[in-house]
Amino acid sequence: MPEHPFDAAVSLEPLGEGLFRGHTSERYWNFVGPFGGITAATALNGILRCPERIGDPLSLTANFMAPIQAGPFTVRTRPVRTNRSTQHWSVEILQEDRPVLGALAVFAERRDTWGLREATPPEARPYLECKPFKAPLEIKWPGMYEMRYARGRFGVENPDSLTHCWIADAPRRALDHASLTAICDAFFPRIFLRRSRLAPIATVSLNIYFHVDAGALAKEGTGPVLCAAKAQVFNKGYYDQEGQVWGADGVLLASTHQIAWYKD
Amino acid sequence: MPEHPFDAAVSLEPLGEGLFRGHTSERYWNFVGPFGGITAATALNGILRCPERIGDPLSLTANFMAPIQAGPFTVRTRPVRTNRSTQHWSVEILQEDRPVLGALAVFAERRDTWGLREATPPEARPYLECKPFKAPLEIKWPGMYEMRYARGRFGVENPDSLTHCWIADAPRRALDHASLTAICDAFFPRIFLRRSRLAPIATVSLNIYFHVDAGALAKEGTGPVLCAAKAQVFNKGYYDQEGQVWGADGVLLASTHQIAWYKD
Repeated sequence: MPEHPFDAAVSLEPLGEGLFRGHTSERYWNFVGPFGGITAATALNGILRCPERIGDPLSLTANFMAPIQAGPFTVRTRPVRTNRSTQHWSVEILQEDRPVLGALAVFAERRDTWGLREATPPEARPYLECKPFKAPLEIKWPGMYEMRYARGRFGVENPDSLTHCWIADAPRRALDHASLTAICDAFFPRIFLRRSRLAPIATVSLNIYFHVDAGALAKEGTGPVLCAAKAQVFNKGYYDQEGQVWGADGVLLASTHQIAWYKD
Repeated sequence: MPEHPFDAAVSLEPLGEGLFRGHTSERYWNFVGPFGGITAATALNGILRCPERIGDPLSLTANFMAPIQAGPFTVRTRPVRTNRSTQHWSVEILQEDRPVLGALAVFAERRDTWGLREATPPEARPYLECKPFKAPLEIKWPGMYEMRYARGRFGVENPDSLTHCWIADAPRRALDHASLTAICDAFFPRIFLRRSRLAPIATVSLNIYFHVDAGALAKEGTGPVLCAAKAQVFNKGYYDQEGQVWGADGVLLASTHQIAWYKD
Protein backbone atom coordinates (compact mmCIF):
# COMPACT_ATOMS: atom_id res chain seq x y z
CA MET A 1 0.00 0.00 0.00
CA PRO A 2 1.50 3.36 -0.95
CA GLU A 3 2.24 5.79 1.84
CA HIS A 4 -0.70 8.03 2.77
CA PRO A 5 -0.07 11.70 1.86
CA PHE A 6 -0.49 12.66 5.53
CA ASP A 7 2.30 10.28 6.59
CA ALA A 8 4.50 11.61 3.81
CA ALA A 9 3.83 15.19 4.92
CA VAL A 10 4.75 14.64 8.59
CA SER A 11 7.60 12.21 7.89
CA LEU A 12 10.95 12.92 9.49
CA GLU A 13 14.46 11.74 8.79
CA PRO A 14 16.37 11.12 12.03
CA LEU A 15 19.62 13.08 12.36
CA GLY A 16 20.41 11.75 15.85
CA GLU A 17 20.00 13.13 19.42
CA GLY A 18 16.43 14.40 19.09
CA LEU A 19 17.11 16.06 15.73
CA PHE A 20 15.13 15.35 12.59
CA ARG A 21 14.88 16.73 9.08
CA GLY A 22 11.48 17.33 7.52
CA HIS A 23 10.20 19.03 4.39
CA THR A 24 7.13 21.14 3.73
CA SER A 25 4.38 19.40 1.77
CA GLU A 26 2.94 20.85 -1.43
CA ARG A 27 -0.24 18.89 -0.91
CA TYR A 28 -0.93 20.50 2.48
CA TRP A 29 -0.02 24.01 1.32
CA ASN A 30 -2.06 27.01 2.50
CA PHE A 31 -1.92 30.53 0.99
CA VAL A 32 1.67 31.47 1.77
CA GLY A 33 2.91 28.59 3.91
CA PRO A 34 2.05 25.08 5.04
CA PHE A 35 -1.31 24.36 6.67
CA GLY A 36 -0.66 24.98 10.38
CA GLY A 37 -2.23 21.69 11.38
CA ILE A 38 0.31 19.71 9.39
CA THR A 39 3.15 21.67 10.98
CA ALA A 40 1.81 21.04 14.49
CA ALA A 41 1.36 17.35 13.63
CA THR A 42 4.96 17.23 12.41
CA ALA A 43 6.15 18.67 15.73
CA LEU A 44 4.16 16.02 17.59
CA ASN A 45 5.56 13.36 15.29
CA GLY A 46 9.07 14.43 16.30
CA ILE A 47 8.25 13.35 19.86
CA LEU A 48 6.46 10.20 18.74
CA ARG A 49 9.64 9.20 16.91
CA CYS A 50 11.85 9.52 20.02
CA PRO A 51 12.68 6.16 21.66
CA GLU A 52 12.63 7.63 25.19
CA ARG A 53 9.02 8.79 24.81
CA ILE A 54 6.60 7.31 27.33
CA GLY A 55 2.84 7.10 26.98
CA ASP A 56 0.55 8.99 24.63
CA PRO A 57 0.02 12.69 23.91
CA LEU A 58 -2.00 14.46 26.60
CA SER A 59 -1.52 18.10 25.63
CA LEU A 60 0.17 20.06 22.86
CA THR A 61 0.70 23.79 22.56
CA ALA A 62 2.22 24.93 19.27
CA ASN A 63 3.20 28.58 18.82
CA PHE A 64 3.65 29.70 15.25
CA MET A 65 6.55 32.10 15.45
CA ALA A 66 7.30 33.08 11.87
CA PRO A 67 6.29 32.25 8.29
CA ILE A 68 7.54 28.86 7.09
CA GLN A 69 9.14 28.77 3.65
CA ALA A 70 8.70 25.91 1.19
CA GLY A 71 11.59 23.54 1.67
CA PRO A 72 13.41 21.60 4.37
CA PHE A 73 13.30 22.28 8.09
CA THR A 74 14.83 20.87 11.24
CA VAL A 75 12.82 19.49 14.18
CA ARG A 76 14.55 19.58 17.57
CA THR A 77 12.88 17.63 20.37
CA ARG A 78 13.89 17.70 24.02
CA PRO A 79 12.50 15.61 26.90
CA VAL A 80 12.53 18.33 29.55
CA ARG A 81 11.34 16.32 32.51
CA THR A 82 10.23 12.73 32.94
CA ASN A 83 8.11 11.76 35.92
CA ARG A 84 6.60 8.43 36.88
CA SER A 85 3.69 8.57 34.44
CA THR A 86 4.11 11.91 32.64
CA GLN A 87 6.78 13.31 30.39
CA HIS A 88 7.25 16.96 29.44
CA TRP A 89 8.64 17.82 26.02
CA SER A 90 9.81 20.89 24.20
CA VAL A 91 9.93 20.99 20.40
CA GLU A 92 11.25 23.57 18.00
CA ILE A 93 11.03 23.65 14.23
CA LEU A 94 13.81 25.67 12.64
CA GLN A 95 14.55 27.04 9.22
CA GLU A 96 17.97 28.55 8.56
CA ASP A 97 18.73 28.00 12.26
CA ARG A 98 15.90 30.26 13.37
CA PRO A 99 12.79 28.93 15.16
CA VAL A 100 9.57 29.09 13.17
CA LEU A 101 7.53 27.01 15.64
CA GLY A 102 7.91 26.37 19.34
CA ALA A 103 5.86 23.76 21.16
CA LEU A 104 5.36 22.23 24.57
CA ALA A 105 3.80 18.82 24.97
CA VAL A 106 2.87 16.49 27.78
CA PHE A 107 2.80 12.75 27.27
CA ALA A 108 1.20 10.45 29.80
CA GLU A 109 0.70 6.81 30.56
CA ARG A 110 -3.00 6.77 31.36
CA ARG A 111 -4.61 4.31 33.70
CA ASP A 112 -8.17 3.24 34.37
CA THR A 113 -9.94 5.50 36.90
CA TRP A 114 -13.35 6.79 37.80
CA GLY A 115 -14.55 8.84 34.86
CA LEU A 116 -17.41 11.01 33.70
CA ARG A 117 -18.41 12.46 30.35
CA GLU A 118 -19.98 15.80 31.11
CA ALA A 119 -20.02 17.38 27.67
CA THR A 120 -22.21 15.81 25.03
CA PRO A 121 -21.79 16.06 21.27
CA PRO A 122 -23.95 18.55 19.39
CA GLU A 123 -27.00 17.30 17.60
CA ALA A 124 -25.68 17.64 14.11
CA ARG A 125 -27.13 16.57 10.81
CA PRO A 126 -25.71 13.15 9.93
CA TYR A 127 -22.69 12.96 7.68
CA LEU A 128 -24.57 11.36 4.81
CA GLU A 129 -27.16 14.15 4.80
CA CYS A 130 -24.56 16.92 4.47
CA LYS A 131 -23.06 18.04 1.18
CA PRO A 132 -19.33 17.69 0.58
CA PHE A 133 -17.68 21.07 1.01
CA LYS A 134 -15.40 22.50 -1.64
CA ALA A 135 -13.34 25.44 -0.43
CA PRO A 136 -13.89 28.45 -2.71
CA LEU A 137 -10.19 29.18 -2.47
CA GLU A 138 -7.07 28.49 -4.43
CA ILE A 139 -5.46 26.53 -1.61
CA LYS A 140 -4.53 22.89 -1.54
CA TRP A 141 -4.83 21.53 1.99
CA PRO A 142 -8.65 21.49 2.22
CA GLY A 143 -8.55 18.98 -0.62
CA MET A 144 -6.71 16.61 1.71
CA TYR A 145 -9.86 16.34 3.83
CA GLU A 146 -13.43 15.30 3.32
CA MET A 147 -15.40 18.07 4.96
CA ARG A 148 -19.16 18.26 5.30
CA TYR A 149 -20.65 21.20 7.12
CA ALA A 150 -23.77 20.49 9.14
CA ARG A 151 -23.92 24.06 10.49
CA GLY A 152 -22.39 27.38 9.44
CA ARG A 153 -21.54 28.74 6.01
CA PHE A 154 -18.07 29.82 5.00
CA GLY A 155 -17.51 33.36 3.74
CA VAL A 156 -20.85 34.87 4.71
CA GLU A 157 -21.99 36.86 7.73
CA ASN A 158 -23.46 34.09 9.87
CA PRO A 159 -25.38 35.15 13.02
CA ASP A 160 -22.71 33.34 15.05
CA SER A 161 -19.40 31.60 14.38
CA LEU A 162 -20.44 28.14 15.57
CA THR A 163 -19.88 25.42 12.99
CA HIS A 164 -20.47 21.69 12.99
CA CYS A 165 -18.36 19.91 10.45
CA TRP A 166 -17.69 16.27 9.66
CA ILE A 167 -14.02 15.76 8.80
CA ALA A 168 -11.98 12.81 7.61
CA ASP A 169 -8.64 12.48 5.88
CA ALA A 170 -8.86 12.18 2.09
CA PRO A 171 -8.07 9.51 1.17
CA ARG A 172 -9.31 7.91 4.37
CA ARG A 173 -6.70 7.04 6.99
CA ALA A 174 -7.07 5.51 10.47
CA LEU A 175 -7.11 8.27 13.07
CA ASP A 176 -4.12 8.70 15.39
CA HIS A 177 -2.83 11.51 17.58
CA ALA A 178 -0.89 13.10 14.71
CA SER A 179 -3.84 13.25 12.32
CA LEU A 180 -6.11 14.37 15.16
CA THR A 181 -3.67 17.24 15.79
CA ALA A 182 -3.96 18.40 12.20
CA ILE A 183 -7.75 18.11 12.26
CA CYS A 184 -7.80 20.42 15.31
CA ASP A 185 -6.51 23.19 13.03
CA ALA A 186 -8.72 22.32 10.06
CA PHE A 187 -11.75 24.33 11.14
CA PHE A 188 -11.99 27.38 8.93
CA PRO A 189 -10.95 30.67 10.49
CA ARG A 190 -13.84 31.93 12.61
CA ILE A 191 -13.55 35.43 11.20
CA PHE A 192 -14.70 34.15 7.79
CA LEU A 193 -17.96 33.11 9.42
CA ARG A 194 -18.69 36.63 10.66
CA ARG A 195 -17.30 38.74 7.81
CA SER A 196 -17.73 38.10 4.11
CA ARG A 197 -14.49 39.90 3.30
CA LEU A 198 -11.45 37.64 3.08
CA ALA A 199 -8.42 39.24 4.69
CA PRO A 200 -5.14 37.79 5.95
CA ILE A 201 -5.24 35.75 9.16
CA ALA A 202 -2.66 33.58 10.91
CA THR A 203 -2.87 31.20 13.84
CA VAL A 204 -0.51 32.43 16.56
CA SER A 205 -0.95 29.71 19.18
CA LEU A 206 -2.75 26.36 18.98
CA ASN A 207 -3.60 24.31 22.05
CA ILE A 208 -4.89 20.72 22.10
CA TYR A 209 -5.95 18.44 24.95
CA PHE A 210 -6.20 14.79 23.98
CA HIS A 211 -8.91 12.99 25.94
CA VAL A 212 -8.23 9.44 24.78
CA ASP A 213 -5.14 7.29 24.56
CA ALA A 214 -3.83 5.52 21.48
CA GLY A 215 -5.81 2.38 22.23
CA ALA A 216 -9.12 4.21 22.34
CA LEU A 217 -8.24 6.32 19.33
CA ALA A 218 -7.48 3.24 17.23
CA LYS A 219 -11.09 2.15 17.68
CA GLU A 220 -12.24 5.22 15.71
CA GLY A 221 -10.96 3.80 12.47
CA THR A 222 -11.10 6.16 9.51
CA GLY A 223 -13.84 8.43 10.76
CA PRO A 224 -15.30 10.88 9.97
CA VAL A 225 -15.16 12.81 13.23
CA LEU A 226 -17.61 15.54 14.17
CA CYS A 227 -15.97 18.90 14.88
CA ALA A 228 -17.59 21.85 16.63
CA ALA A 229 -15.88 25.22 16.76
CA LYS A 230 -16.72 28.79 17.70
CA ALA A 231 -15.10 32.09 18.56
CA GLN A 232 -15.72 34.13 21.67
CA VAL A 233 -14.25 37.50 20.80
CA PHE A 234 -12.59 39.39 17.95
CA ASN A 235 -10.68 42.33 19.42
CA LYS A 236 -7.79 44.53 18.38
CA GLY A 237 -6.30 42.22 15.79
CA TYR A 238 -6.80 38.85 17.51
CA TYR A 239 -9.64 36.38 17.90
CA ASP A 240 -9.95 33.06 19.67
CA GLN A 241 -11.42 29.73 18.64
CA GLU A 242 -12.51 26.84 20.79
CA GLY A 243 -13.40 23.48 19.40
CA GLN A 244 -14.20 19.88 20.13
CA VAL A 245 -13.58 16.76 18.08
CA TRP A 246 -16.11 14.01 18.68
CA GLY A 247 -15.66 10.38 17.75
CA ALA A 248 -18.08 7.52 17.44
CA ASP A 249 -20.52 6.95 20.31
CA GLY A 250 -20.19 10.58 21.43
CA VAL A 251 -16.65 10.21 22.77
CA LEU A 252 -14.79 13.51 23.08
CA LEU A 253 -11.45 12.78 21.41
CA ALA A 254 -9.89 16.21 21.78
CA SER A 255 -10.67 19.76 22.77
CA THR A 256 -8.73 22.54 21.11
CA HIS A 257 -8.23 26.27 21.39
CA GLN A 258 -6.36 28.77 19.35
CA ILE A 259 -5.72 32.47 19.11
CA ALA A 260 -5.25 33.97 15.68
CA TRP A 261 -4.13 37.29 14.26
CA TYR A 262 -6.26 39.08 11.70
CA LYS A 263 -5.68 42.05 9.47
CA ASP A 264 -8.48 44.55 9.37
CA MET B 1 1.66 52.07 50.93
CA PRO B 2 3.04 48.64 51.82
CA GLU B 3 3.58 46.18 49.01
CA HIS B 4 0.55 44.05 48.15
CA PRO B 5 1.07 40.35 49.02
CA PHE B 6 0.53 39.43 45.37
CA ASP B 7 3.35 41.69 44.25
CA ALA B 8 5.58 40.27 46.96
CA ALA B 9 4.75 36.73 45.88
CA VAL B 10 5.60 37.25 42.19
CA SER B 11 8.56 39.56 42.81
CA LEU B 12 11.83 38.74 41.13
CA GLU B 13 15.39 39.80 41.76
CA PRO B 14 17.25 40.33 38.47
CA LEU B 15 20.41 38.26 38.05
CA GLY B 16 21.17 39.57 34.55
CA GLU B 17 20.61 38.21 31.00
CA GLY B 18 17.00 37.07 31.42
CA LEU B 19 17.71 35.37 34.75
CA PHE B 20 15.83 36.16 37.95
CA ARG B 21 15.63 34.79 41.44
CA GLY B 22 12.25 34.33 43.12
CA HIS B 23 10.99 32.66 46.27
CA THR B 24 7.84 30.67 46.99
CA SER B 25 5.21 32.49 49.03
CA GLU B 26 3.79 31.11 52.26
CA ARG B 27 0.67 33.17 51.81
CA TYR B 28 -0.14 31.60 48.44
CA TRP B 29 0.64 28.05 49.58
CA ASN B 30 -1.52 25.14 48.45
CA PHE B 31 -1.48 21.62 49.94
CA VAL B 32 2.05 20.54 49.11
CA GLY B 33 3.35 23.37 46.93
CA PRO B 34 2.60 26.90 45.82
CA PHE B 35 -0.78 27.75 44.27
CA GLY B 36 -0.24 27.12 40.54
CA GLY B 37 -1.71 30.47 39.58
CA ILE B 38 0.97 32.35 41.50
CA THR B 39 3.69 30.29 39.83
CA ALA B 40 2.28 30.96 36.36
CA ALA B 41 1.99 34.67 37.24
CA THR B 42 5.63 34.66 38.36
CA ALA B 43 6.68 33.17 35.01
CA LEU B 44 4.75 35.90 33.20
CA ASN B 45 6.30 38.50 35.47
CA GLY B 46 9.73 37.31 34.37
CA ILE B 47 8.87 38.42 30.83
CA LEU B 48 7.22 41.64 31.99
CA ARG B 49 10.49 42.53 33.74
CA CYS B 50 12.60 42.12 30.58
CA PRO B 51 13.51 45.43 28.93
CA GLU B 52 13.32 43.98 25.40
CA ARG B 53 9.70 42.96 25.88
CA ILE B 54 7.26 44.52 23.40
CA GLY B 55 3.51 44.88 23.85
CA ASP B 56 1.22 43.06 26.25
CA PRO B 57 0.57 39.38 26.98
CA LEU B 58 -1.59 37.69 24.35
CA SER B 59 -1.20 34.04 25.31
CA LEU B 60 0.47 32.01 28.02
CA THR B 61 0.86 28.25 28.33
CA ALA B 62 2.41 27.06 31.57
CA ASN B 63 3.27 23.37 32.00
CA PHE B 64 3.76 22.23 35.58
CA MET B 65 6.57 19.72 35.30
CA ALA B 66 7.37 18.73 38.86
CA PRO B 67 6.49 19.59 42.47
CA ILE B 68 7.88 22.94 43.63
CA GLN B 69 9.58 22.96 47.02
CA ALA B 70 9.30 25.83 49.49
CA GLY B 71 12.27 28.11 48.95
CA PRO B 72 14.09 29.96 46.20
CA PHE B 73 13.87 29.30 42.49
CA THR B 74 15.36 30.65 39.29
CA VAL B 75 13.35 32.10 36.42
CA ARG B 76 14.96 31.95 32.98
CA THR B 77 13.30 33.97 30.21
CA ARG B 78 14.23 33.87 26.54
CA PRO B 79 12.84 35.99 23.70
CA VAL B 80 12.71 33.28 21.05
CA ARG B 81 11.51 35.33 18.11
CA THR B 82 10.54 38.97 17.71
CA ASN B 83 8.38 40.03 14.78
CA ARG B 84 6.97 43.43 13.85
CA SER B 85 4.12 43.38 16.38
CA THR B 86 4.47 40.03 18.16
CA GLN B 87 7.14 38.52 20.34
CA HIS B 88 7.49 34.84 21.29
CA TRP B 89 8.93 33.93 24.67
CA SER B 90 10.03 30.81 26.46
CA VAL B 91 10.23 30.73 30.26
CA GLU B 92 11.53 28.09 32.63
CA ILE B 93 11.39 28.01 36.40
CA LEU B 94 14.14 25.89 37.93
CA GLN B 95 14.91 24.49 41.34
CA GLU B 96 18.28 22.85 41.90
CA ASP B 97 18.97 23.38 38.19
CA ARG B 98 16.03 21.22 37.15
CA PRO B 99 12.94 22.65 35.42
CA VAL B 100 9.76 22.62 37.50
CA LEU B 101 7.74 24.78 35.08
CA GLY B 102 8.04 25.41 31.36
CA ALA B 103 6.06 28.11 29.60
CA LEU B 104 5.52 29.64 26.20
CA ALA B 105 4.09 33.13 25.84
CA VAL B 106 3.19 35.48 23.05
CA PHE B 107 3.26 39.22 23.56
CA ALA B 108 1.69 41.59 21.07
CA GLU B 109 1.30 45.24 20.33
CA ARG B 110 -2.40 45.44 19.62
CA ARG B 111 -3.99 47.94 17.29
CA ASP B 112 -7.53 49.14 16.72
CA THR B 113 -9.42 46.96 14.26
CA TRP B 114 -12.91 45.79 13.43
CA GLY B 115 -14.10 43.79 16.40
CA LEU B 116 -17.01 41.73 17.64
CA ARG B 117 -17.96 40.30 20.98
CA GLU B 118 -19.70 37.04 20.27
CA ALA B 119 -19.70 35.47 23.73
CA THR B 120 -21.77 37.12 26.42
CA PRO B 121 -21.27 36.86 30.17
CA PRO B 122 -23.47 34.44 32.10
CA GLU B 123 -26.44 35.79 33.96
CA ALA B 124 -25.06 35.41 37.44
CA ARG B 125 -26.39 36.53 40.77
CA PRO B 126 -24.82 39.92 41.61
CA TYR B 127 -21.73 39.97 43.77
CA LEU B 128 -23.47 41.64 46.70
CA GLU B 129 -26.16 38.96 46.78
CA CYS B 130 -23.66 36.09 47.04
CA LYS B 131 -22.12 34.91 50.28
CA PRO B 132 -18.36 35.12 50.80
CA PHE B 133 -16.85 31.67 50.31
CA LYS B 134 -14.57 30.15 52.90
CA ALA B 135 -12.66 27.15 51.66
CA PRO B 136 -13.25 24.13 53.94
CA LEU B 137 -9.59 23.27 53.61
CA GLU B 138 -6.40 23.85 55.50
CA ILE B 139 -4.81 25.73 52.64
CA LYS B 140 -3.74 29.34 52.54
CA TRP B 141 -4.07 30.72 49.02
CA PRO B 142 -7.88 30.91 48.89
CA GLY B 143 -7.62 33.41 51.74
CA MET B 144 -5.76 35.72 49.36
CA TYR B 145 -8.94 36.08 47.31
CA GLU B 146 -12.46 37.28 47.92
CA MET B 147 -14.57 34.57 46.31
CA ARG B 148 -18.33 34.55 46.09
CA TYR B 149 -19.99 31.65 44.29
CA ALA B 150 -23.14 32.50 42.34
CA ARG B 151 -23.45 28.94 40.97
CA GLY B 152 -22.05 25.56 42.02
CA ARG B 153 -21.13 24.17 45.42
CA PHE B 154 -17.70 22.95 46.35
CA GLY B 155 -17.23 19.38 47.57
CA VAL B 156 -20.64 18.00 46.69
CA GLU B 157 -21.95 16.06 43.70
CA ASN B 158 -23.37 18.88 41.60
CA PRO B 159 -25.40 17.92 38.50
CA ASP B 160 -22.71 19.60 36.41
CA SER B 161 -19.32 21.21 37.00
CA LEU B 162 -20.26 24.71 35.83
CA THR B 163 -19.53 27.42 38.39
CA HIS B 164 -19.97 31.17 38.41
CA CYS B 165 -17.73 32.86 40.91
CA TRP B 166 -16.90 36.47 41.66
CA ILE B 167 -13.20 36.83 42.43
CA ALA B 168 -11.02 39.70 43.59
CA ASP B 169 -7.62 39.91 45.22
CA ALA B 170 -7.74 40.21 49.03
CA PRO B 171 -6.82 42.86 49.91
CA ARG B 172 -8.08 44.49 46.75
CA ARG B 173 -5.51 45.25 44.06
CA ALA B 174 -5.90 46.81 40.61
CA LEU B 175 -6.12 44.06 38.00
CA ASP B 176 -3.21 43.52 35.62
CA HIS B 177 -2.07 40.66 33.39
CA ALA B 178 -0.12 39.00 36.20
CA SER B 179 -3.02 38.95 38.66
CA LEU B 180 -5.40 37.93 35.89
CA THR B 181 -3.09 34.97 35.19
CA ALA B 182 -3.32 33.82 38.79
CA ILE B 183 -7.11 34.25 38.83
CA CYS B 184 -7.31 31.95 35.78
CA ASP B 185 -6.08 29.12 38.02
CA ALA B 186 -8.19 30.08 41.04
CA PHE B 187 -11.32 28.18 40.06
CA PHE B 188 -11.63 25.15 42.26
CA PRO B 189 -10.76 21.82 40.66
CA ARG B 190 -13.74 20.68 38.64
CA ILE B 191 -13.56 17.16 40.02
CA PHE B 192 -14.57 18.50 43.46
CA LEU B 193 -17.84 19.66 41.90
CA ARG B 194 -18.72 16.17 40.70
CA ARG B 195 -17.34 14.01 43.52
CA SER B 196 -17.65 14.67 47.21
CA ARG B 197 -14.45 12.76 47.95
CA LEU B 198 -11.32 14.88 48.10
CA ALA B 199 -8.41 13.17 46.42
CA PRO B 200 -5.10 14.50 45.09
CA ILE B 201 -5.21 16.53 41.88
CA ALA B 202 -2.60 18.61 40.05
CA THR B 203 -2.79 20.97 37.12
CA VAL B 204 -0.53 19.68 34.37
CA SER B 205 -0.93 22.41 31.75
CA LEU B 206 -2.59 25.83 31.99
CA ASN B 207 -3.44 27.91 28.94
CA ILE B 208 -4.60 31.53 28.91
CA TYR B 209 -5.63 33.86 26.09
CA PHE B 210 -5.73 37.52 27.07
CA HIS B 211 -8.40 39.41 25.18
CA VAL B 212 -7.58 42.96 26.33
CA ASP B 213 -4.40 44.98 26.46
CA ALA B 214 -2.94 46.68 29.52
CA GLY B 215 -4.80 49.91 28.84
CA ALA B 216 -8.20 48.22 28.79
CA LEU B 217 -7.32 46.07 31.78
CA ALA B 218 -6.38 49.11 33.86
CA LYS B 219 -9.97 50.34 33.51
CA GLU B 220 -11.19 47.32 35.48
CA GLY B 221 -9.76 48.68 38.70
CA THR B 222 -9.92 46.33 41.66
CA GLY B 223 -12.78 44.15 40.44
CA PRO B 224 -14.32 41.77 41.30
CA VAL B 225 -14.33 39.83 38.04
CA LEU B 226 -16.90 37.18 37.16
CA CYS B 227 -15.42 33.77 36.42
CA ALA B 228 -17.19 30.90 34.70
CA ALA B 229 -15.62 27.46 34.53
CA LYS B 230 -16.62 23.94 33.61
CA ALA B 231 -15.16 20.57 32.71
CA GLN B 232 -15.93 18.55 29.62
CA VAL B 233 -14.57 15.13 30.46
CA PHE B 234 -12.91 13.17 33.26
CA ASN B 235 -11.17 10.16 31.75
CA LYS B 236 -8.30 7.86 32.71
CA GLY B 237 -6.69 10.11 35.29
CA TYR B 238 -7.09 13.49 33.57
CA TYR B 239 -9.84 16.08 33.25
CA ASP B 240 -10.07 19.39 31.47
CA GLN B 241 -11.38 22.78 32.55
CA GLU B 242 -12.40 25.71 30.41
CA GLY B 243 -13.12 29.11 31.84
CA GLN B 244 -13.82 32.74 31.12
CA VAL B 245 -13.01 35.82 33.16
CA TRP B 246 -15.46 38.67 32.63
CA GLY B 247 -14.85 42.29 33.55
CA ALA B 248 -17.16 45.24 33.92
CA ASP B 249 -19.64 45.90 31.08
CA GLY B 250 -19.47 42.27 29.98
CA VAL B 251 -15.96 42.49 28.55
CA LEU B 252 -14.23 39.13 28.19
CA LEU B 253 -10.82 39.73 29.76
CA ALA B 254 -9.40 36.24 29.36
CA SER B 255 -10.35 32.72 28.39
CA THR B 256 -8.47 29.87 30.00
CA HIS B 257 -8.13 26.12 29.71
CA GLN B 258 -6.30 23.55 31.69
CA ILE B 259 -5.80 19.83 31.94
CA ALA B 260 -5.32 18.31 35.35
CA TRP B 261 -4.28 14.95 36.74
CA TYR B 262 -6.41 13.25 39.36
CA LYS B 263 -5.90 10.26 41.56
CA ASP B 264 -8.78 7.85 41.75
